Amino acid sequence: MAITFYDLCGKNQKRFSPFGWRTRMALAHKGLDYSLELVKFTEKQKLEFSGQSLVPVIKDGETVVNDSWAIAEYLEDTYPDRPSLFGSTEGRGMAKVIDNFVTRTIQPMIPSLIIADLAANVDSGCLEYFVSSREKRFGKPLTEVQAGREGRVEAALKAMEPIRAVIKDQPFIGGETPTYADFPLFAVLQWARCGSPFQIVPADDPIHAWFDRLLDAYHGVGRSEPAAA
Amino acid sequence: MAITFYDLCGKNQKRFSPFGWRTRMALAHKGLDYSLELVKFTEKQKLEFSGQSLVPVIKDGETVVNDSWAIAEYLEDTYPDRPSLFGSTEGRGMAKVIDNFVTRTIQPMIPSLIIADLAANVDSGCLEYFVSSREKRFGKPLTEVQAGREGRVEAALKAMEPIRAVIKDQPFIGGETPTYADFPLFAVLQWARCGSPFQIVPADDPIHAWFDRLLDAYHGVGRSEPAAA
Repeated sequence: MAITFYDLCGKNQKRFSPFGWRTRMALAHKGLDYSLELVKFTEKQKLEFSGQSLVPVIKDGETVVNDSWAIAEYLEDTYPDRPSLFGSTEGRGMAKVIDNFVTRTIQPMIPSLIIADLAANVDSGCLEYFVSSREKRFGKPLTEVQAGREGRVEAALKAMEPIRAVIKDQPFIGGETPTYADFPLFAVLQWARCGSPFQIVPADDPIHAWFDRLLDAYHGVGRSEPAAA
Repeated sequence: MAITFYDLCGKNQKRFSPFGWRTRMALAHKGLDYSLELVKFTEKQKLEFSGQSLVPVIKDGETVVNDSWAIAEYLEDTYPDRPSLFGSTEGRGMAKVIDNFVTRTIQPMIPSLIIADLAANVDSGCLEYFVSSREKRFGKPLTEVQAGREGRVEAALKAMEPIRAVIKDQPFIGGETPTYADFPLFAVLQWARCGSPFQIVPADDPIHAWFDRLLDAYHGVGRSEPAAA
């Protein structure tokens, strides 16, 4: 069967969606080939076939799956002979807790650190939509949302402590090799890396070295996406 | 080898330490027998041999291990033929992330919901120490710390969402049977159950049914500790 992966893109086909990156890493981990369909912010009609409007979506033969977690479970169950995303049945539920923890606790702290910079990486045709929808969400101009970000970095770094407590002692959350448990925070930091030059994680933080290892994983799929200048 | 488990106790040998419960469940999961040494708040000298003053501590032959996570790893490595606490190598690191998430995010929200009630369950000889040390920590009388707790329940329940997202669909975080990943939040809720009659988790919350299943696990070791009246 042929897989098609629908992922969000910005200017110059730049891909920074934190949910898209979860799926991109999962496909890389499974070693699955796929055709890529890039979807701009204003091209949500491309996803109509999935019954909703958010990336990531995959179409595998006749099967359509949206939501990054649902995609991870689908890939694990459909391609059991490929490297396991979770390591074990027990690891599947544990990875889901970690995914939810990152999505609810760490991920919401990132926009106020990068959002105005991110706008500069949005395709010009989508810029008005991006800015007006985000300004409506935050209730103020994006430059104001981002202002004073230096003072908010410490809280974001502190929120990463449950993961730091593990990867300071071993290469990845699951041990010697990456598992899906690594992907949510990786994806959040990759969103920041591709969307803004602002450095969130200091070079001497164990999270920094762990992120570097994940950028290099799977033939460097993460590093292949250029960092924001 | 014979294991001795040093756990905190209150009035009538009541055991409510949230770290002690992590270890108690781990020992039950492994099916290991042990002698119990109860330690009152004012009997910390009983732990001097461990080089620190906090429960839980286990002594296994000549080996002394303190810190609930270190004990979990010790038991897993020393008794590999017993049921695995983590399910897999990958699950060990994932469970550690979850343990740290609960300890840092959920556990600190509990004292202001139960602390004055908990004092009523402390041994009379330890009460002055307990109250003065806690009042110093919070900077006000324990009744004032606890006042208005109804307004803080929602935040505590919301903090449990990463775990709820998993156990609403399956019996335990790791699937059909408990793993160590369940024990940190179980232990926190058991601390509350044994220390206060205040109901934090509503009966219709999936967390409530999950907690009930864990109270029944391992021949009901959790339920054997009476709830606070």
